[in-house]
Amino acid sequence: MSQTRIETDSMGQVEVAADRYWGAQTQRSIHNFPIGRDTFVWGRPVIKALGILKKGAAQANAELGELPSDVADLIVRAADEVIAGELDDHFPLVVFQTGSGTQSNMNSNEVISNRAIELAGGQLGSKVPVHPNDHVNRGQSSNDTFPTAMHIAVLLELRDRLEGDVALLRDTLAAKGEEFADVVKVGRTHLQDATPITLGQEIGGWVAQIDYAMREVRHAGDGLHELAIGGTAVGTGLNAHPRFGDLAARKMGEEAGFELVSAKNKFAALSAHDALVQTSAALRTLAGALMKMANDVRWLASGPRNGIGELVIPENEPGSSIMPGKVNPTQPEALTMVATRVFGNDATVAFAGTQGNFQLNVYKPVMVHAVLESIRLLGDGCRAFNDGCAVGLEPHTERIEANLASNLMQVTALNPHIGYDAAAAIAKQAHKEGLTLREAAIASGQVTEEEFDAWVVPIDMTRPRHVD
Amino acid sequence: MSQTRIETDSMGQVEVAADRYWGAQTQRSIHNFPIGRDTFVWGRPVIKALGILKKGAAQANAELGELPSDVADLIVRAADEVIAGELDDHFPLVVFQTGSGTQSNMNSNEVISNRAIELAGGQLGSKVPVHPNDHVNRGQSSNDTFPTAMHIAVLLELRDRLEGDVALLRDTLAAKGEEFADVVKVGRTHLQDATPITLGQEIGGWVAQIDYAMREVRHAGDGLHELAIGGTAVGTGLNAHPRFGDLAARKMGEEAGFELVSAKNKFAALSAHDALVQTSAALRTLAGALMKMANDVRWLASGPRNGIGELVIPENEPGSSIMPGKVNPTQPEALTMVATRVFGNDATVAFAGTQGNFQLNVYKPVMVHAVLESIRLLGDGCRAFNDGCAVGLEPHTERIEANLASNLMQVTALNPHIGYDAAAAIAKQAHKEGLTLREAAIASGQVTEEEFDAWVVPIDMTRPRHVD
Amino acid sequence: MSQTRIETDSMGQVEVAADRYWGAQTQRSIHNFPIGRDTFVWGRPVIKALGILKKGAAQANAELGELPSDVADLIVRAADEVIAGELDDHFPLVVFQTGSGTQSNMNSNEVISNRAIELAGGQLGSKVPVHPNDHVNRGQSSNDTFPTAMHIAVLLELRDRLEGDVALLRDTLAAKGEEFADVVKVGRTHLQDATPITLGQEIGGWVAQIDYAMREVRHAGDGLHELAIGGTAVGTGLNAHPRFGDLAARKMGEEAGFELVSAKNKFAALSAHDALVQTSAALRTLAGALMKMANDVRWLASGPRNGIGELVIPENEPGSSIMPGKVNPTQPEALTMVATRVFGNDATVAFAGTQGNFQLNVYKPVMVHAVLESIRLLGDGCRAFNDGCAVGLEPHTERIEANLASNLMQVTALNPHIGYDAAAAIAKQAHKEGLTLREAAIASGQVTEEEFDAWVVPIDMTRPRHVD
Amino acid sequence: MSQTRIETDSMGQVEVAADRYWGAQTQRSIHNFPIGRDTFVWGRPVIKALGILKKGAAQANAELGELPSDVADLIVRAADEVIAGELDDHFPLVVFQTGSGTQSNMNSNEVISNRAIELAGGQLGSKVPVHPNDHVNRGQSSNDTFPTAMHIAVLLELRDRLEGDVALLRDTLAAKGEEFADVVKVGRTHLQDATPITLGQEIGGWVAQIDYAMREVRHAGDGLHELAIGGTAVGTGLNAHPRFGDLAARKMGEEAGFELVSAKNKFAALSAHDALVQTSAALRTLAGALMKMANDVRWLASGPRNGIGELVIPENEPGSSIMPGKVNPTQPEALTMVATRVFGNDATVAFAGTQGNFQLNVYKPVMVHAVLESIRLLGDGCRAFNDGCAVGLEPHTERIEANLASNLMQVTALNPHIGYDAAAAIAKQAHKEGLTLREAAIASGQVTEEEFDAWVVPIDMTRPRHVD
Repeated sequence: MSQTRIETDSMGQVEVAADRYWGAQTQRSIHNFPIGRDTFVWGRPVIKALGILKKGAAQANAELGELPSDVADLIVRAADEVIAGELDDHFPLVVFQTGSGTQSNMNSNEVISNRAIELAGGQLGSKVPVHPNDHVNRGQSSNDTFPTAMHIAVLLELRDRLEGDVALLRDTLAAKGEEFADVVKVGRTHLQDATPITLGQEIGGWVAQIDYAMREVRHAGDGLHELAIGGTAVGTGLNAHPRFGDLAARKMGEEAGFELVSAKNKFAALSAHDALVQTSAALRTLAGALMKMANDVRWLASGPRNGIGELVIPENEPGSSIMPGKVNPTQPEALTMVATRVFGNDATVAFAGTQGNFQLNVYKPVMVHAVLESIRLLGDGCRAFNDGCAVGLEPHTERIEANLASNLMQVTALNPHIGYDAAAAIAKQAHKEGLTLREAAIASGQVTEEEFDAWVVPIDMTRPRHVD
Repeated sequence: MSQTRIETDSMGQVEVAADRYWGAQTQRSIHNFPIGRDTFVWGRPVIKALGILKKGAAQANAELGELPSDVADLIVRAADEVIAGELDDHFPLVVFQTGSGTQSNMNSNEVISNRAIELAGGQLGSKVPVHPNDHVNRGQSSNDTFPTAMHIAVLLELRDRLEGDVALLRDTLAAKGEEFADVVKVGRTHLQDATPITLGQEIGGWVAQIDYAMREVRHAGDGLHELAIGGTAVGTGLNAHPRFGDLAARKMGEEAGFELVSAKNKFAALSAHDALVQTSAALRTLAGALMKMANDVRWLASGPRNGIGELVIPENEPGSSIMPGKVNPTQPEALTMVATRVFGNDATVAFAGTQGNFQLNVYKPVMVHAVLESIRLLGDGCRAFNDGCAVGLEPHTERIEANLASNLMQVTALNPHIGYDAAAAIAKQAHKEGLTLREAAIASGQVTEEEFDAWVVPIDMTRPRHVD
Repeated sequence: MSQTRIETDSMGQVEVAADRYWGAQTQRSIHNFPIGRDTFVWGRPVIKALGILKKGAAQANAELGELPSDVADLIVRAADEVIAGELDDHFPLVVFQTGSGTQSNMNSNEVISNRAIELAGGQLGSKVPVHPNDHVNRGQSSNDTFPTAMHIAVLLELRDRLEGDVALLRDTLAAKGEEFADVVKVGRTHLQDATPITLGQEIGGWVAQIDYAMREVRHAGDGLHELAIGGTAVGTGLNAHPRFGDLAARKMGEEAGFELVSAKNKFAALSAHDALVQTSAALRTLAGALMKMANDVRWLASGPRNGIGELVIPENEPGSSIMPGKVNPTQPEALTMVATRVFGNDATVAFAGTQGNFQLNVYKPVMVHAVLESIRLLGDGCRAFNDGCAVGLEPHTERIEANLASNLMQVTALNPHIGYDAAAAIAKQAHKEGLTLREAAIASGQVTEEEFDAWVVPIDMTRPRHVD
Repeated sequence: MSQTRIETDSMGQVEVAADRYWGAQTQRSIHNFPIGRDTFVWGRPVIKALGILKKGAAQANAELGELPSDVADLIVRAADEVIAGELDDHFPLVVFQTGSGTQSNMNSNEVISNRAIELAGGQLGSKVPVHPNDHVNRGQSSNDTFPTAMHIAVLLELRDRLEGDVALLRDTLAAKGEEFADVVKVGRTHLQDATPITLGQEIGGWVAQIDYAMREVRHAGDGLHELAIGGTAVGTGLNAHPRFGDLAARKMGEEAGFELVSAKNKFAALSAHDALVQTSAALRTLAGALMKMANDVRWLASGPRNGIGELVIPENEPGSSIMPGKVNPTQPEALTMVATRVFGNDATVAFAGTQGNFQLNVYKPVMVHAVLESIRLLGDGCRAFNDGCAVGLEPHTERIEANLASNLMQVTALNPHIGYDAAAAIAKQAHKEGLTLREAAIASGQVTEEEFDAWVVPIDMTRPRHVD
């Protein structure tokens, strides 16, 4: 900080590096909150959302006559740079600050103010012609702007990151499911041998879980389209034009590319973040679905010789620093680790979400950060899993066939013909004597060879029986 | 167990009390799983759901020609008794048993079989004319029936318990909100004095949270209308008539009084219970909303002399065994304890939900039990809170007015007139000197008495400003 | 409630069933808190602890001259009946009540008072000669008595239930470990084939985890020996004799059979329950250890033909209502379900533990209930698992040997002789060509037959190499 | 990557930037795991621990004759640079990789190998004279080294970060407690007015909680002194000298500055990380204690005029972007947000800790990362809270005295003289009539003025009564 300038706020003067746009309050926050630096600095999504917010607010204020159009234009120009990522270095604050996100709201007010002043040829720190509070923050409070930015940031990431990354994996799996629709194999329940299914059906179950989870993520995300903007300090909208919330939300939506509205109940919108909690929960469900899928993949690929071994997955790297030639299911491992992290993040979000008091919940930053981290990790994890595992998934045909041949639970197909109790006796006999099911069935005298061959057909057990 | 009879299953003979309808497998489970008895015995919702399930299955099988109609009729008659609660004493099993719920499914098969046999004048344990597996369980597996019963049980409880109990509280609060729509009081953010709101607005925020949470509960519950029935052992529907799942679901829905369908993807329906996880998450959001509300109530009622004291709540019991005359916010305490329990239950459900393998998740009983417990506690808690607290909630007018009179944050109303920085100076001066805001404002020379009185009007700060 | 009597408290009169010892405040609580009845009624441990508490308090007060000895004697006699379980029907309250447990403290005061009055030939409800507050609760407040009872109840259950039930399983496993100390089998890491271990070593790892967890449970339990007693209403000890806390704790310890002391810092002892949180966490660690063990057991026992199949576990019941002859790992399933429940309980406890304010944490009942439930379930679960699974655990020798014979990772033994890279090439070649390791090794030209047979000896890989 | 060289591993060749020491496997991991970059890159603690690990291993191997001393010396020199932080830029991997941490173990093997080769004047990538597997990883597997590094990293951070940062805050609070030992104020239970305490006692309760939590953190940390080293691939110690584990642990301990030993049971040490789970749980307890303290601080400082207002905390920054002059309890907010994050991290750790299978738990990276993050945030949070809040904490004397004067619960001091019931009547009367306690007491006729003044003395209620 070789060269500095003086910035001021209502508490007095602060020295700021001359080449930074931020002002006194951002500088105070840097000093007061050296917590988790540098891994907890806000990244792109929140900065972009703050840019969208301030741009939309300025446009709305201008349209409503609450800001002179030249001031609004300056704000819009500076906010456009924030949106574009050109000023990311001017957003140095971390998550663990004031619980309303006031300091990050002020960071955006200060940066946009100073950059706008610069664009107007004014002097940084002068607050003329664009004041951080009176102009950039016009008709706003941190209490409504920060949750607004939270919603926009999460919506951006859901749309721009999660949807694509999950779809990539989902579509690969769906295609694999179709490709292996006719691979008949043993099913497993309670980890024990069960009646046959096809590999396509098995994979289809994973896809169905992912589809459900994504529908729930989208549904929860719908709640995020309602913004706190317009509520200002306590939800009453004090100092905002009565139409500001609606109009600003619409402007922000135009910039973001999705519909946004001002929340019906602003008091709830400031003092709770239940739509974010629900989004976190839906992400948790997605994580659970991915965990189940990844566990199935690695168990089915276990071996190569002492495990189940019905699936073959790509060998991407040496698996062991001591066991030569070992290959491990590293992508499933990374993805299941992501799942446990998402569970932890969700615990944070839900806990924090309960702790609002009166007109404000002051756990805003930690909540949005955890949700954004979950989205990021789920997206990255799905993409890595897709590229490094799913695309290369293949059945180990010999193993599958050998397992199917020795499977005893196909005895179930005899139930409708000889009853559960007689069928059970056959299966037990086969197990005890080490016979094949066919051998035991015929030896029982309950079925003839012809009947057995007609009734016990693995592929038939995987699809609806013919009815007239 | 003075008198007994012999029951059999595929493993052999078991002695059962003569006056119980259950059979060998139920008896084995009693012996093998003495875990958490008696607090973890299944109660009404699951038993009733099993009755609805078995009745619908018998009807569907009869209609499809899979069961003789006289056998089906006997099953229906016995199942009706299960539904009506007449046979609850014959369902002795606990939650911690096999993870598929097989033993509870067999409990229902056995009880219905024996009761049907009795109705037919047959001999208990003979399995004639109604066999527990071949008839009562026809076209079914525990793997699809138990999750079907789980969904039905939860749906019953959501409809018959939660909706009413929550609505009771919600409507009381909404009425209080309207009643106190004109009570202007200080707002609080960061626990600190903030600009005014009305008590009606404050309460309205709670109502909005409850409404949102209940919408999410209902939405999540929608996923429960898809049933696993028809999937049988591994999801392929082996041994079930191809139209059994759809038809049985429809029959069950008619009995239950809500629409039920067979799940599109049965593989997911057996190996995961994500709709239950989502329901649990939505209940958690409801718990969070109630916790915030209950915390606000007790903080606002804190005192009577050394706290905030703006609300008066009913005095239901002596508060202290040592401090005479003390009255405590016991209903908020009970409700926030419920919330922490619901959070724990949700942690159980979500964890268990990730642990499926291949074609089955074997944490079914613990999942449904926790969800049902959460519903029960939330319902009971809301009703108790309503009756013991919400209906008697009153503002402490003098305290509210005194607080409002000393509040400094009404300075915010000056922002549009004199700017944030000048307004801040006034507030700081008032705070420092112990002045009222009006005194400090006028002393500052920034505003006249007339201006102050026109601009700083608490009630005006709680509603949209007039615009032409 | 055909016959009633009138009981009174500082709020007035209440009708109580004539055959119940409780008084007005208990009756009010029954009416005000119909939450979770009947599964959340306090059971033996808490009632017994309240008895121990009141007995010890009376003895200490008598010794300190704070109570006449005849009054104290009457209290002791009534408390002895509470301890012995003779008055359990007179403790009807549920967990979800006031967060200090005041109503349960008063329940014990009222029951002991009335029973003592009865013993003295007095009139129930008269409070003469034994007053519930002035005598039974002498020198006490719910705020210090209830947490005292919480600690005692948990300590009783740890000692009388958990220790024995866990030891039963632990010792069975340890014996199995010794029994199978020489069964060499493949190891598995990342679910993939790895170098050999013995079955004894594998089981020994489970035992080591249980031992560690139990040490941690005991360590955490040590913190419970410090009691809140003596702190009365806010921690200052107001109205208690200065030596009351220490002496009462000692008396309670004599009754309970373990050393008890009065907490050094009573303010922390009332406003937080961190030793309980730590106990819950240690129980969670135990649950995690049991879950890992149970998962290993069921995976090793998976099959019988299409899984790993290296362990054989007892067949306790038919496994499937549709698949005849199926046997499932039901005890591992019950135990892992217990584990997920313990995790949920711990989430409740830890959350509730953070929510104290000022001089009191008002989540006492929900915290102690969850800890007691975890202990109960872990104890029951261990005992059931022991009896129904662990005692019958056997190796499937043929399967173990076949797996060992085909295992490739024994190549690791060649590292010190030919280096990691050359060893890797051999393993890869064997895998690719379907060769045995021996075949591939010799074909590589890197080792002779003699060298291979000397260097690659499975049993040798499971124990320290010989050094001079 | 303008200039590159070729690195090889058992899978073939990989291009690596010429100015990086890492080899083929690190490069593969960068490519395969683009998850959470850059916030999830390992930082100092893990890198330093890997350096300590590899140095100690080389020293032990040399001493045992398993490595030539010149090779060992080269490894030690390179490892010293790793320890010193000079090679941090050569550790680019992220947390979400293979679950054993193999790739980070290989990262350290490769970097140390290449740097050692460079020191010896050899060619990077040649593996001569120092091979990453055969020399740097000698007698080791990722399965025992990575958990060893995990323990060391956490121990370093506990000692070098957490202890100091927490002590800073703890000691400040303890000093404040002594300073305000004589400030008598109202106590509060259930948020309601209770009997008096001193501010020193109130603060002392916080200190006691922190002290307890830190004792538990240290106790849990004791378990971390047992290292997996010596277990190699599956716990049997294959390929390691029999004395390697003990000796290497001792060497590492000498470097780290604390005692380290080889774990008694290596099978548990690889397949579970229960000491880490316990450490996480103890950190959670610390977080809970800090949350309670921070909540008390902000509630006591609530106001300034419409809250409790008994504490004054430093004004560090403007509190609101819209409400001029507002000051908020930002440090408590940041600290309570940290607490919710630590809770989430703990949920991740405990969940992951249950998911081991057979000889390995493959959630190692996500577990250690979460624990290290919790330590970092707790440390930073305590320091910031200390500097920005605790050091400036002051009582608001007038408010405290006014509250004390109006407090009714001092009636409790009358219990021993007139009994609970008569005292209750006085308190109720005072409350109802708006009288002071003294007025109501004397009006009741139960006590004289002299008696009241002798019996009801706030300071006396905060300390043991005099006994002869």
